[in-house]
Amino acid sequence: MTTHHYTLTISCPDRAGIIAAVSGFIAEHGGFIVEASYHTELEAQRFFMRQEIRADSLPFAADEFGRRFAALAATFEMNWQLSDSKLNKRLVILVSKQDHCLDDLLHRWRSGELQVDIPCVISNHEDLRSFVEWHGIPFIHVDMQDKLAAFKKIAALFDEYRGDTMVLARFMQIVPPFLCRRYTGKIINIHHSFLPSFVGAKPYHQAYLRGVKLIGATCHYVTDELDAGPIIEQDTVRIDHGDTVDDLVRYGRDIEKTVLARGLRYHVEDRVLVCGNKTIVFK
Amino acid sequence: MTTHHYTLTISCPDRAGIIAAVSGFIAEHGGFIVEASYHTELEAQRFFMRQEIRADSLPFAADEFGRRFAALAATFEMNWQLSDSKLNKRLVILVSKQDHCLDDLLHRWRSGELQVDIPCVISNHEDLRSFVEWHGIPFIHVDMQDKLAAFKKIAALFDEYRGDTMVLARFMQIVPPFLCRRYTGKIINIHHSFLPSFVGAKPYHQAYLRGVKLIGATCHYVTDELDAGPIIEQDTVRIDHGDTVDDLVRYGRDIEKTVLARGLRYHVEDRVLVCGNKTIVFK
Amino acid sequence: MTTHHYTLTISCPDRAGIIAAVSGFIAEHGGFIVEASYHTELEAQRFFMRQEIRADSLPFAADEFGRRFAALAATFEMNWQLSDSKLNKRLVILVSKQDHCLDDLLHRWRSGELQVDIPCVISNHEDLRSFVEWHGIPFIHVDMQDKLAAFKKIAALFDEYRGDTMVLARFMQIVPPFLCRRYTGKIINIHHSFLPSFVGAKPYHQAYLRGVKLIGATCHYVTDELDAGPIIEQDTVRIDHGDTVDDLVRYGRDIEKTVLARGLRYHVEDRVLVCGNKTIVFK
Amino acid sequence: MTTHHYTLTISCPDRAGIIAAVSGFIAEHGGFIVEASYHTELEAQRFFMRQEIRADSLPFAADEFGRRFAALAATFEMNWQLSDSKLNKRLVILVSKQDHCLDDLLHRWRSGELQVDIPCVISNHEDLRSFVEWHGIPFIHVDMQDKLAAFKKIAALFDEYRGDTMVLARFMQIVPPFLCRRYTGKIINIHHSFLPSFVGAKPYHQAYLRGVKLIGATCHYVTDELDAGPIIEQDTVRIDHGDTVDDLVRYGRDIEKTVLARGLRYHVEDRVLVCGNKTIVFK
Repeated sequence: MTTHHYTLTISCPDRAGIIAAVSGFIAEHGGFIVEASYHTELEAQRFFMRQEIRADSLPFAADEFGRRFAALAATFEMNWQLSDSKLNKRLVILVSKQDHCLDDLLHRWRSGELQVDIPCVISNHEDLRSFVEWHGIPFIHVDMQDKLAAFKKIAALFDEYRGDTMVLARFMQIVPPFLCRRYTGKIINIHHSFLPSFVGAKPYHQAYLRGVKLIGATCHYVTDELDAGPIIEQDTVRIDHGDTVDDLVRYGRDIEKTVLARGLRYHVEDRVLVCGNKTIVFK
Repeated sequence: MTTHHYTLTISCPDRAGIIAAVSGFIAEHGGFIVEASYHTELEAQRFFMRQEIRADSLPFAADEFGRRFAALAATFEMNWQLSDSKLNKRLVILVSKQDHCLDDLLHRWRSGELQVDIPCVISNHEDLRSFVEWHGIPFIHVDMQDKLAAFKKIAALFDEYRGDTMVLARFMQIVPPFLCRRYTGKIINIHHSFLPSFVGAKPYHQAYLRGVKLIGATCHYVTDELDAGPIIEQDTVRIDHGDTVDDLVRYGRDIEKTVLARGLRYHVEDRVLVCGNKTIVFK
Repeated sequence: MTTHHYTLTISCPDRAGIIAAVSGFIAEHGGFIVEASYHTELEAQRFFMRQEIRADSLPFAADEFGRRFAALAATFEMNWQLSDSKLNKRLVILVSKQDHCLDDLLHRWRSGELQVDIPCVISNHEDLRSFVEWHGIPFIHVDMQDKLAAFKKIAALFDEYRGDTMVLARFMQIVPPFLCRRYTGKIINIHHSFLPSFVGAKPYHQAYLRGVKLIGATCHYVTDELDAGPIIEQDTVRIDHGDTVDDLVRYGRDIEKTVLARGLRYHVEDRVLVCGNKTIVFK
Repeated sequence: MTTHHYTLTISCPDRAGIIAAVSGFIAEHGGFIVEASYHTELEAQRFFMRQEIRADSLPFAADEFGRRFAALAATFEMNWQLSDSKLNKRLVILVSKQDHCLDDLLHRWRSGELQVDIPCVISNHEDLRSFVEWHGIPFIHVDMQDKLAAFKKIAALFDEYRGDTMVLARFMQIVPPFLCRRYTGKIINIHHSFLPSFVGAKPYHQAYLRGVKLIGATCHYVTDELDAGPIIEQDTVRIDHGDTVDDLVRYGRDIEKTVLARGLRYHVEDRVLVCGNKTIVFK
C-alpha cells in the first residue's frame, strides 16, 4: 500500500532559508518529496519540519543520505532524525485487566493498519494471556508486589525485546520517575480524562461528581510529573444527566481507544515533535 | 409557531407512583401532555420531572391549575413550578467590550428564536451603546470605580427592570458573593474554557501554554465560588499546534456564543433543574 | 450491574390520558419506573412510549404483567411489547472478510458491555473462523455460488439458532427481498456512508470523487429497497484534501464500528421504535 | 495583529524539485516564510502550494516579486497568484429575508475578525436595509420580477463596486448559468444540507422525511449545476426524533453561519485552490 519512503524530521533555531536549504539538498539528489510540513514555534523561536521522501527517488540508501545531510544539519544546529518506512517501530504494550485498548491495538496491528512490530505484551495480571497468545505474541506476567523490582524488570524486558516505544494501554500502575527519565519521549499513556481536568485516580468518578457535560481522553508522553507530560491527542464525547458513572466508563472506553490509536499512529509515523511540554503533530 | 402551553417542573424525594399521580391529575382535567421527561438522581434519591401541557386542553388557567395541584404536591413534598409560555422570561444582559455573545443573543431575540424580553443591557463600558439602542433596548452604563457600589446599582437595576435572569455575556468582572447569593440560580455566565480546566483569568492563554488539543466553553450558574457553579452546557472545538493564542480566542468566540445560546435556551424553557452542584437538563 | 427489569414499549394512536393510564396501571401494582420516555409523531398522530420497570417492585412475573396489561392495551389500540432484561437477545452475525465490526462487537460481548447471546457467526469466507472460534462461538461458512440457496440456508440457520436479530457486520452481499420481508425490523446493517449520500457500492470512493469534507456511516434496518430502510444511528468524521481513498476507508472503519455498536445497543435495549420509514430512539 | 505578508499560491504539473526551486527563489531574496503548505493531487498529477512570506523580509514590493518570479513560474508551467495582506478582498453579499448569515458576517467584519471590505449588500427584499445601513454599508434592493434583468443588474453592481467575491448568504434565488460562468470561483454559496444529500429546495424538510440523525451545511463555489460545485467546507450537527422541521431549521441556522464563516475565511486568505470539482484547503 504505502510506498517505501524515508521520513526526515528536523527541529532547529528559526531563521530564513531553512526550507530552501533542506529542499535544495533533497532536490539536488533527485529526491521526490511526498509530504512536507513546517511549523515555527514562536515563543521558543524554533522551527520544526517533517518531510517524506520516496526512497526510490534517491540514488543511495538512508544511511548514506544521513552522512551527506549531517553537514547541512550542523550548519543550522538541527536536531534531526531519518526513519525508514521499511523498519517497523517496536511497541511493547503494558496492560492490566481492562483490554479495550489492547483489543483495539491488536486488531489494528493484525489488519495491517498499524504498521509496527509488537515483540511482547507485559501485564501485572494473567487475564489477557490467552487473547495475546492467540495473536502469536509473547505475554509476560510481571508481579507487582515489589514495585521497584517490577519496574526494573519491565525496563530490562523493554531493552531485551528492543522496544522503541512503551505503550501504557490502561496499565493501572504509576510509572516511577527513573523509568520516565530513562525513556523520555518513548512512553505513551492514555489517560481517561480530558487533561488537565481530573488528573490521577478515578477521573470518570470525578467528572460525574463535577457534573460536566462532556468527558474526554488524553494520549500523552509520560514524564515524571503525573498526567502532565506533552499531550499528543485528545477528544471528548457528550454525556448527560442520565448517565451513571458506569455509562461514563462505557463511553470513555470508546474514546480512549480512538484517542490512543490516533496518538500512537502519529508517533509511529514520526509526526510528533516535542517542544518543551507541547507537541507539534504534523497530520 | 409554538402553541400556548404550561410547563410544570417538579423535584421531590424519589418513590413509586409519582408519575402516575401527576399524570393522573393532569388527565383527570383533560390535560394533553406535549412533552414529558423524568430523571432520578440516584445519590440524592430525588426525582425530577418536566411536563409541557397544552393550555387549551385544560378547563382553567395556570393559577387555578396551581391551586388544585398544591395538595398533591404537598403529599409528595414537591418543589414545583408552573410557567406559562405566554409570559416571557426577562433577561438582563451584562457586557463589557466584547460583543460576540451579545450580538448572537440579540440576533436570536430579534429573529424570534429566543422568546424572551430584554428590558435592558448593562455595561461597564460605553462601546456597545449604539448597537444595543439600535434594537430599541435601553443601554445603561455602570461605572466600576467603586465595585461594591456598582454591583449594588446592578442589583437595583435588575430589580427595577423586573429581571428574571441575569446573563453575563462576557462581562469581565467578578460578581461579588452577596449578589451570587441573592440571585441563586438566576445568574448565568459563559466561561471561556472547558471547566474545570482553566478556571479564572486568561483561560485561552492557559490552554495554549498547556498544549491541549481542544478548547472549550462552559455555560453555568454563578455561585460564590469562582467558575464552580452548576454546569448547564459545554462544548469543545479542535485546535492544533499551528494555532496562536489569537486563533484560540477566535475559535473560542464561536463556541462561547453557541454554548451560551444553548444553555440559555434550556434555562428559559425551564429545562434545567438543579440538584446540588449538578444540573438535570431535559432537552 | 444492571438490576433486573422489564421494558415496556408501546405505540398507539395519540390522545390525552395515555401516560396516566399506563403509569396508573404500573403504580397500582407497586411498579417502580426506572426510566421513562415518550414521543408523539405529529404527522402520523401516533404516540410512542418506553418504560423500564424494576422487576422486584412487581408482585408477579412478566407473563402475568402481560396478561393484565392486555385489556388496557386493547382500549388504546396499542402495539406493545414487554421484554425481560434477564432474557438476552440472540444476535446472529454475518461477516465477509473485513473484521473490524466483528472484532468490535465480540470485544463488547466478551467484556459484558453488550448483553446478548451470539449463537453463531455466519460468513461467505473462511478467513475469520479461527478468531470467532477462539471465542467459543460456532462459525458457519455458507457458499455464495448459488445466492438464492445461500440465503435460504442463512434463513434456516437463523431460525435453527433461534436468532432475534441478524447483524450485517460489513457483510458484502445484498440481502434478497424475501429475506428482508421475512425478518422486517430484525436485520440491522452498517452502511459505510452518511445516507442518503452514496448509496450502494464503494461509497468511500464516491465520497472521494465528490470532494466532501466529512464522511460518515449509517446503521439502519434492512428493507427491500437498498440502503433505504429506517435509520437507527449515524455519525460523521472530518477528512481533508490530503486523505486518499485508503485513508477514508481507515477513518471509516472507526466510525462504522462505533455507529454499529451504538445502533445495536439501542436495538438490543428496546430503545428503537419504528414509525413508517423513521425511527424513534429513546436514549 | 497580523503582520504584513504576501501569499503565494501555485498549482502546476507535479515533478521533483518544485519546493526547492520556489523556496530557493524566496530564500535568495531573503524572504522569510511564515507558513507553507503543499499537496499533490494524485489522479490529476498536479502539485499545489501556498506560502506566506513576511513582506518586510523582501527587498522589493509585491509587483517586483511577481515580475522576477514569472520566469521560474513559466519553467514549471505554474498557475500562480500573489496576494498582499494589505489589500482587502471585496465581498459583495447577497441576501433575501433571512439574516442569520448576514448578521454573523457583519459581526465578524465589524469586530475585525474577517478582514475584508464590504462595498455593498444586495437584496431582493427591503427587510434588512436598516440593519445593513446601521453598519454604514450601502444596501441595494434589486427587484426580481424579471429575473434575467435582475441578475444582469447584480452583475453590473458587482463590477461597479469592484467586488472580488460574491457571497450568497442565504440568497433564495438560483443564480443563472451566465453569471456562474462569468464569475467562476468567485461566487460562494451556503447550502443548508450536507451535500450531496438533499440538493435543491427545502433540504431540512427532506432530511426530516428521510429520518436522518444528523443534518449539515455546505459552503461551496457556485457552478452552473445546482448545488454541485466544489465544496469548500461542511459540517453536521446531531438531531433526534423529537426535533420538528422548525427545530432542524433552528439547528441549521447555527451550522450554516459557522460553515459559511469558515469557508469564506479560507477563501479570503487564499487557502482554497480548486482542482477539477474538488478543493484543496490549506488550513
